Amino acid sequence: MRLQVALDGTLAESLTVLEAVHPYVDIAEIGTPLILREGVRAITASRQLYPNLPLLADFKIMDAGEIEAAIAFDAGADIVTVLGVTQEATLASVITTAQRYDAEVMVDLMQVPADRASGFLEIGCDYLCVHTSTDMRSMTPVAGLEALRYGIPHAPLAVAGGIRLETIDLLATLNPRIIIVGSAITRAADPAAAAQQFKERINAHARLS
Amino acid sequence: MRLQVALDGTLAESLTVLEAVHPYVDIAEIGTPLILREGVRAITASRQLYPNLPLLADFKIMDAGEIEAAIAFDAGADIVTVLGVTQEATLASVITTAQRYDAEVMVDLMQVPADRASGFLEIGCDYLCVHTSTDMRSMTPVAGLEALRYGIPHAPLAVAGGIRLETIDLLATLNPRIIIVGSAITRAADPAAAAQQFKERINAHARLS
Repeated sequence: MRLQVALDGTLAESLTVLEAVHPYVDIAEIGTPLILREGVRAITASRQLYPNLPLLADFKIMDAGEIEAAIAFDAGADIVTVLGVTQEATLASVITTAQRYDAEVMVDLMQVPADRASGFLEIGCDYLCVHTSTDMRSMTPVAGLEALRYGIPHAPLAVAGGIRLETIDLLATLNPRIIIVGSAITRAADPAAAAQQFKERINAHARLS
Repeated sequence: MRLQVALDGTLAESLTVLEAVHPYVDIAEIGTPLILREGVRAITASRQLYPNLPLLADFKIMDAGEIEAAIAFDAGADIVTVLGVTQEATLASVITTAQRYDAEVMVDLMQVPADRASGFLEIGCDYLCVHTSTDMRSMTPVAGLEALRYGIPHAPLAVAGGIRLETIDLLATLNPRIIIVGSAITRAADPAAAAQQFKERINAHARLS
């Protein structure tokens, strides 16, 4: 299980957080609001500061798959997100472009019917992300992750949406490949300490399994 | 019928095109790839150069409705796009935020079942956009526009996807509120002449109706 921190503030705030947390995270996500504010300079700045840290560009691609995926990878991203609700032609373009860059594709399953999920792996996507919307704060992604884990036992899953330190033990039983944490790290009083706690909790489960 | 030009190149290319075409267009769209490359500076730069030109930010919002819509409107956009496939809570957040800024919301109908379209107007969206994906080049949005026009006769519709000068006469019979043109203007040998031709063709139909 890998820990991904989702950076969603301004570029200055995000780089301050990243400086504090980078020793504890496996992937840094350049979140959608950060991309909308700053464009790819949020990716290039992170890449320049941390040459070996895997970066995910949360572009949520819906159209123009080749053009948009190339923008992410040219800027230095290792993984780009595409919306599972998009048309197949766009998914195919994103996958082909990722292969050309030796990069990876995460499908955001928001609003995708559960029975469509396995199809994304068959066509070459690398990760399926169970994602509870920021706008539905009372929901958690646990039930969705559970359904997907039992439906596709070996799927490389990611999980995002309001994840707290207390959620990790439950999530870990479902063995996601990537656990995505946003505000519980980025808005913690001490982001470095929070990231370290998440990493240690995740590692404890890895040692047990 | 209003003419919207979709700017999708680099910022420098887009500002060059905008300088040439702004006398002929009613709305300038800051397209998704341009936003991904440059962030909101593509909006602020256009706003600064053309204080009175309506600007649409093609954010294709899928999550975090309030945060993302506010990013667009704070930068000077008059209209923001939201994906019709998103959850209702996100749509509601985008609409509420637009009302707070006295701004407008266009729903992108890509991948939305036809029978859901009228619901977007009932909850307060301003325009419904029939949008053929860039990744499905053999498709045109004409059939979708026709179905929607007969389904919701008075709906404020927008139409996008591979529109050429020759398509205008057919589209005009369906009375869209906004006709969105991308490469047929931005990649024309003479973008100003192309925009003028589109505007004149659209105006000819307006005089007839």
